[in-house]
Parts: sequence; C-alpha cells; structure tokens
Amino acid sequence: MAVITIFSRGETKEVTLKARGQAISTAVDVAEITRRKFIKNLRVEHVNLGTEEMPNQEGGTRSVSTIEITLTKSF
Amino acid sequence: MAVITIFSRGETKEVTLKARGQAISTAVDVAEITRRKFIKNLRVEHVNLGTEEMPNQEGGTRSVSTIEITLTKSF
Repeated sequence: MAVITIFSRGETKEVTLKARGQAISTAVDVAEITRRKFIKNLRVEHVNLGTEEMPNQEGGTRSVSTIEITLTKSF
Repeated sequence: MAVITIFSRGETKEVTLKARGQAISTAVDVAEITRRKFIKNLRVEHVNLGTEEMPNQEGGTRSVSTIEITLTKSF
C-alpha cells in the first residue's frame, strides 16, 4: 500500500524496497504485485543483493542476506 | 553445496539459481554465502524477478513470485 500511495502522488518516479532475511520474499511479492496489478508502467530498474552483520543475543554477530529492489515509473 | 561443486569442477563460469515463494530468501542466502565464504571471484551478474501461476487445490491458480540469480565466476 505504501508503494502505491507514494507513486500515486505523482511526484516520485523511483522507489527502493529494502528487506532482510525472510522478508526478502515479501519484498519481491510487493514489487511483483505492485507492477502487475496496480501500476502498469512500473519496471524493476535494478536489484542489489547484499549481506549485513546483525548483533545476536550472545554479543556476537550473524550474517543476514539483504535485497534492494528499485522500481521506476515511466511517464 | 551444489553451486560450489559445479564451480569447483572448473568448466563452468555461470550458474543461475531459481526459486519461488518463501524459497526466494534461501536462494539469496546461497548466492551471498557462496560469494562471500567460498568463491571469492564470484559476482552476481543479474537478478530477474517474475511471477508464475501455480495450480491450487480448488482447480484455479495462484500467483507466486520468482527469482533468478545468475552468478558468474571470473578467471
């Protein structure tokens, strides 16, 4: 909904979705559903994969995968 | 392991990981862990997002997000 709202204001042509871990598949769902069902002139501009070090309960860190999906609206 | 095995034979320079739904985050983990921990000269060549129609139990279909991650080894 937030992605649709941002684009519907008409002032923004680019939105980047960022997600970590299990939420990565949700971010892909958001990109795909927005593009297919709601905003037809939207395309995936680029996708970046990465890794972040997150603090764990033992005072150490664990590696978590990340995704950044940039959506661009053409006018 | 399969990705590491394929690249370790030395004959292949490109592998594409494909995943659907919740497995998308696992595919990103595989790409990131392989690249960071095992094969240093590996890079994410491109990432494609998509949607597949899967048959459901009621005889209809449901949309499932997909990802394709192409990894390339430079020599």
